[in-house]
Amino acid sequence: MPEIKDILLGNQRAGARMIRLIEEGSPKAFPLLKQLYPHSGNAFIIGITGSPGVGKSTLMDALILEFRKRDKRIAVIAVDPSSPFSGGAILGDRLRMQRHATDEAVFIRSMASRGQTGGLSRATKDTAIVLDAMGYDIILIETVGAGQGEFDIASLAHSTGIVSIPGTGDGIQAVKAGILETGDVFIVNKCDRPGADASVHALTMMIGMRNRGTQLSNPSPKWTPLVLKTKALDGTGVDELADTFLSHFDFLKKNSLTDQTKRTQETLYFKSLLNDLTLEKIRSFMEASPKYDAVLKKIQTHEMDPISAAEHVVNTMIILK
Amino acid sequence: MPEIKDILLGNQRAGARMIRLIEEGSPKAFPLLKQLYPHSGNAFIIGITGSPGVGKSTLMDALILEFRKRDKRIAVIAVDPSSPFSGGAILGDRLRMQRHATDEAVFIRSMASRGQTGGLSRATKDTAIVLDAMGYDIILIETVGAGQGEFDIASLAHSTGIVSIPGTGDGIQAVKAGILETGDVFIVNKCDRPGADASVHALTMMIGMRNRGTQLSNPSPKWTPLVLKTKALDGTGVDELADTFLSHFDFLKKNSLTDQTKRTQETLYFKSLLNDLTLEKIRSFMEASPKYDAVLKKIQTHEMDPISAAEHVVNTMIILK
Repeated sequence: MPEIKDILLGNQRAGARMIRLIEEGSPKAFPLLKQLYPHSGNAFIIGITGSPGVGKSTLMDALILEFRKRDKRIAVIAVDPSSPFSGGAILGDRLRMQRHATDEAVFIRSMASRGQTGGLSRATKDTAIVLDAMGYDIILIETVGAGQGEFDIASLAHSTGIVSIPGTGDGIQAVKAGILETGDVFIVNKCDRPGADASVHALTMMIGMRNRGTQLSNPSPKWTPLVLKTKALDGTGVDELADTFLSHFDFLKKNSLTDQTKRTQETLYFKSLLNDLTLEKIRSFMEASPKYDAVLKKIQTHEMDPISAAEHVVNTMIILK
Repeated sequence: MPEIKDILLGNQRAGARMIRLIEEGSPKAFPLLKQLYPHSGNAFIIGITGSPGVGKSTLMDALILEFRKRDKRIAVIAVDPSSPFSGGAILGDRLRMQRHATDEAVFIRSMASRGQTGGLSRATKDTAIVLDAMGYDIILIETVGAGQGEFDIASLAHSTGIVSIPGTGDGIQAVKAGILETGDVFIVNKCDRPGADASVHALTMMIGMRNRGTQLSNPSPKWTPLVLKTKALDGTGVDELADTFLSHFDFLKKNSLTDQTKRTQETLYFKSLLNDLTLEKIRSFMEASPKYDAVLKKIQTHEMDPISAAEHVVNTMIILK
C-alpha cells in the first residue's frame, strides 16, 4: 500500500502504486484519494487532444523539454484508448517519451481503464488529483480526440490545446464537433507541410466568429484562443506554445477564473463519483442478495424478459430518501 | 411517436423514428422497447471490427451486396465514435453505402451516443432489438476497434469478424489485446498488398494455439475460427466471407449455441439496463431533492470536498433492500 506521506513528498514509486490502485478500480484507492484531495488544486492542468497521427506524443515530448527549461516539474497522463490494434504503436510513442525517465522532475504515466466503474474519465481525474498532491507544477493530459466522445478533457483541464495538421479540413470538423468551443490554444503541427498557413487562417477566422457570439452575451474577461504553428519533431514553435499555455494560466488566475473552473470541476467530479459509488454499492449488494439471484434465474428460464426484470429490480429493491 | 405495429411490419420510417428516440436517450423509448423485445431474437447478428483504415466500410458495402444475392434482408448499424475530427471521413464512407438506400430490404443506420446513460453500447443493443423485431435476417454492426475499449461487440453479436490489413503486425496486437479470443472470422483485407499470406499464416498459427488451450478445458463442440483474404474494393473473397458467416450461424444453431449466446446476452443486457435505470432513477430523484441541493451548496462553499460529499449522499440517501 502506498503511504500518503510518501505521495505528498512526491515519491514516484508511491505515486505509481497509488495510480495502479486507481487503474485497477481497487476499493483501497478511495480512502487514500480522500486524504490526498485537500492537498490538490495547485497544479496547472493542460489537456492536449487531437486525432491519431497529428503528432501529439512528439509534441508532448517537446513540451516536456520546454517546461523543464522553465524549471517546472511535469507529470504526464497519456490516456490510452485500450486499442486492440493500435496499442503497439502508442506504446512506441510512450517509449520515446521515456528519455525523460531519468529526470526526477518528470513523471509519465500511461492510463488504461481496467475495471473502474467510471472508466477512463474517472481514472484520469483521480490520477490528476494524485499527481497534483505530489506537487507537480504542470500536469499534461494527452487524449485521442477520435473515438472518445464521452471523455471530456475540457472538464478536467485548465487549458486545452487542440492539435491538427495542415490540409485535413480539421477546422471545419472542429466546428461540427463542437470542439472549437473547448479549445484555448489551437496547434497546427507538422507546419512545414503545405497548407499550414491556410489551416491557421481558417481556424483564426472561426475563433473570431465564435468569440463575437459569446462576447455579446458574456461581459466578463475572455481568453481569445490563439492559433500556433509547431513542428514538434525539431521543436519549432514549441517555446512559444509553452509560453502561451503559461500566459493562459496567468490570465485565468488574474481573473479568478481558476476558482470558477475549480467549482465547476468539483461539482462534475462529485456527480461522477456519485454515479460510480452508487453502482458499486448496488453491485456488491446485489451479488449477496437472494432476491436478485431469483430474478437472474427467471431471466435464464425466460419467465421474465431482461427489460421487465431490470425495471422490477429498480422499482422494488432501490429506495431513495 | 412510432407505432409498434408499423415497426413490426418492418416500416423503415417507423423504425428510424424509434431508433432516434433511443439515440436521444428519450424516456419514451423504454416502454416501446419492452413491447418490441418479445419479437426479437431471430436475426443473425454479425459484428465487424478493426482499426480505422482497414476498409471496414467498403467491406460492409460488399457484404451487403453478397447477402442481398442470397435474398437476405439486411440492417446495418455503423457505430460512430463521435469523433471530433474523423467524423467527416466516416460520414463519407456512410454516404458510399447509401447506394443501397433505394433497396427496401436494406436499412442502414449510423449511431452516435447522445445523452443515453449507458452510452453507445446500450444504444446499439437497443437498436439491434428494434431491427430484429422489424424482421431483418441479418444485422451487421460495424465498430471501430480503436478507442472503444468499453464497447464489447462480441457480447452483442453471434459472429464477430475482425478485419486487419497485411503487414501491420495486427496478429500480435490482437493477442495482446485479447481480441483473438473474440473473433470467429479473421479477415485480411486489401489482400493484394504485400505480406497478406504472412498475415494469414500468423493469424492461423495463433488461432491454433488458442484452440489447443480451450479444447482441453471444454469438450463441447467448438467453432474453429477461419482466416480469409478479401479485397473489398473489387469484391474479391467477399462471397466466401458471406458463406463463412452463414455457416458459422448454422453451426451455432445446430449445436444449440445460439440459445446459450442468447442467455448470456440477456443477462448482460439485464445488468446494463439495471445500471442505466438506477442512474436515471437517482438523477431524477436528486434533481428534485432539497437535501441534494444542500450538499451541492456545501461543495461550492468548500464546506465539503466532492469525495466526502458523494460518499455522504450514497450512504444516507440510497437504501437497498
